[in-house]
Amino acid sequence: MSTAQRRRTQVAIIGGGPSGLLLSQLLHRRGIDSIVIERRSKEHVLARIRAGILESGFVGLMREAGIAERMDRECFIHEGTMIAYDNRKFRVNFREHTGTDVVVYGQTEVTRDLYEAREKMGGAIDFNVDDVQIHDANGSAPYLTYEKNGTNHRIDCDFIAGCDGFHGVSRQAIPLSVRHEYEKTYPFGWLGVLSETPPVHEELIYANSTRGFALCSMRNASLSRYYIQCALNDSPDDWTDRMFWDELKRRIPEEDADRLVTGPSVEKSIAPLRSFVTEPMRWGRLFLCGDAAHIVPPTGAKGLNTAASDVHYLYTGLRQFYEDGDSDGIDRYSERALARVWKAERFSWNTTNLLHRFPSQTEFDLKMQRAELDFLRDSRDAQKVFAQNYVGLPY
Amino acid sequence: MSTAQRRRTQVAIIGGGPSGLLLSQLLHRRGIDSIVIERRSKEHVLARIRAGILESGFVGLMREAGIAERMDRECFIHEGTMIAYDNRKFRVNFREHTGTDVVVYGQTEVTRDLYEAREKMGGAIDFNVDDVQIHDANGSAPYLTYEKNGTNHRIDCDFIAGCDGFHGVSRQAIPLSVRHEYEKTYPFGWLGVLSETPPVHEELIYANSTRGFALCSMRNASLSRYYIQCALNDSPDDWTDRMFWDELKRRIPEEDADRLVTGPSVEKSIAPLRSFVTEPMRWGRLFLCGDAAHIVPPTGAKGLNTAASDVHYLYTGLRQFYEDGDSDGIDRYSERALARVWKAERFSWNTTNLLHRFPSQTEFDLKMQRAELDFLRDSRDAQKVFAQNYVGLPY
Repeated sequence: MSTAQRRRTQVAIIGGGPSGLLLSQLLHRRGIDSIVIERRSKEHVLARIRAGILESGFVGLMREAGIAERMDRECFIHEGTMIAYDNRKFRVNFREHTGTDVVVYGQTEVTRDLYEAREKMGGAIDFNVDDVQIHDANGSAPYLTYEKNGTNHRIDCDFIAGCDGFHGVSRQAIPLSVRHEYEKTYPFGWLGVLSETPPVHEELIYANSTRGFALCSMRNASLSRYYIQCALNDSPDDWTDRMFWDELKRRIPEEDADRLVTGPSVEKSIAPLRSFVTEPMRWGRLFLCGDAAHIVPPTGAKGLNTAASDVHYLYTGLRQFYEDGDSDGIDRYSERALARVWKAERFSWNTTNLLHRFPSQTEFDLKMQRAELDFLRDSRDAQKVFAQNYVGLPY
Repeated sequence: MSTAQRRRTQVAIIGGGPSGLLLSQLLHRRGIDSIVIERRSKEHVLARIRAGILESGFVGLMREAGIAERMDRECFIHEGTMIAYDNRKFRVNFREHTGTDVVVYGQTEVTRDLYEAREKMGGAIDFNVDDVQIHDANGSAPYLTYEKNGTNHRIDCDFIAGCDGFHGVSRQAIPLSVRHEYEKTYPFGWLGVLSETPPVHEELIYANSTRGFALCSMRNASLSRYYIQCALNDSPDDWTDRMFWDELKRRIPEEDADRLVTGPSVEKSIAPLRSFVTEPMRWGRLFLCGDAAHIVPPTGAKGLNTAASDVHYLYTGLRQFYEDGDSDGIDRYSERALARVWKAERFSWNTTNLLHRFPSQTEFDLKMQRAELDFLRDSRDAQKVFAQNYVGLPY
């Protein structure tokens, strides 16, 4: 092992996914220096198939970061979404109820645009790093150490942004004596299939069926993303493409099943569903962002968007600090980020409860779920509340 | 046992509580003849301490029945309600959000007014009847039999209205092969105290506290009704007045606790909480109304009001039948009544979940409950939806 390479930056960012990259890019444009380190390779990060629904708050950050050009050109605007049950569907109109909409643009594309921008600007990103350790986060001179290609590295910094996901080291660096975690796991998973076929419907279809939840989503006009609720212990290998399409068709309205274009899966995977929040999101000079601090079940598409709202609060706080010498924004980061996080957690949990079948549901519970769906279908005001949450509550 | 006394009427009504009496009175004013039979004495029925919040739909029926005079004179109009948690409270404004309000007038008073009106009009009410039996409800010539003072009675009729509550015979008369029941019991009860003291607040306070739910309600300016969530196996004897007031004060905001005027309880009882619906609500010529068909937990004050909506649908159907020879209203009674019942069940269940402590709640569940309360406090649109449900969805 060679001796340590030592650098200094203002903000050391752990994690080269969309949160870390977006933060780095935003800071860069304000003249605030950062270094991003990422445990995996760039190709590995780019291969992650994740969400594709962006709130206008996220889109605004992409604009502020100066990387909205391709997104604006290639994205699809969804002014509403469909909710299906009982072989029928109804629409929740975002535009009418909130004056705004959501943008369909894959997380993969967001990440690609961010990498391109960071590289163009000479942004420092170290991939394939090992053994990342956070030091003195609660002191006045924090630093990171890590190993790469047999060399020890050290980054001294003013602040550390922990954007390294649920399994990252950042959250773990906060002592258990000050850390409080809230968690719920759900008794099912989502089996997702990506297929190079046109989407079955121009907007998303969220379906509650007697056989379980299904979601018809998309990345673009010729790339569809479909999901079905599956057993937690299922493996993607248990599901042939044929089985997947057959089951999906049984869970969506007949008119959509009849119109569904199927094709070979280009990706197939199962994700568990989890609600998770850690408090606080700040410890000294360490700030947690995104999945490092909270996980939502994917129903309602809040994961990436909630990460973006963290980035917004942290970016705002750091600007205030460096530009105005005012630490209020970073001092109140945890409180502000968590206030919005819990609202997104509430919506995701609520929407998951509304649309899935739970093994423990009694006949009465099923009737209540049905009554909730009926009420949402019949009440314009309930739809307005749903739409406000779906397009994203204000930062 | 003497031989049977036999009478004929158009509508035989089982149960002399508010539903049965209101139906009888409404029918009378349209020239439709009815006989009411009641298992208990009039005094017993009048001694029941029940709900005191009337939706405008209920008030409208009282007007149509011609018995709103005393209510209009003595009632209190509530244009909103308070929801408390965390030692603070916020208001949901009914008037602003829905253009209407609710009326505070005790069920006991409603029943008294109904008896007075029925007696003035010579309405037939048989109290203290035993062994009520329903015959041929699914045939063309239904009849009731019962025993009173050692005499057998028989009432032949066109239709039977089962307004005899959860423990009555009406629901049981529908064969299990066609009857489907949905039920949820809650792991706590409400300990209620009636006291001749001025209400602590001019509107109701629904309180979620770490020690459990509390409700500050009232009947009039000098008669208060307070409730606290208690253990299911508690007995009213376990709770001295002093213990009750002390516990209530711990569960409501300090400013209200400080202002609370206490006094000896004039009634103290514990009620379990239950959600229950039977389907269908019609079997042949037998129609279930109110508690005979459904029970809601009292959170949200939907019990008496949902009974009233049943009365509305049945009264409308019977009028259509007798006045226009059109059976559509009675044929669709079950479907129409149930559509509204399930919405009231949903609201009552939801509000119960929002405000109570459940033994099974995890820390995450408590955070979600808290997030729901925060969201309701912060979202005018969520308050609008709450208000619409509280004042009563349209018939």
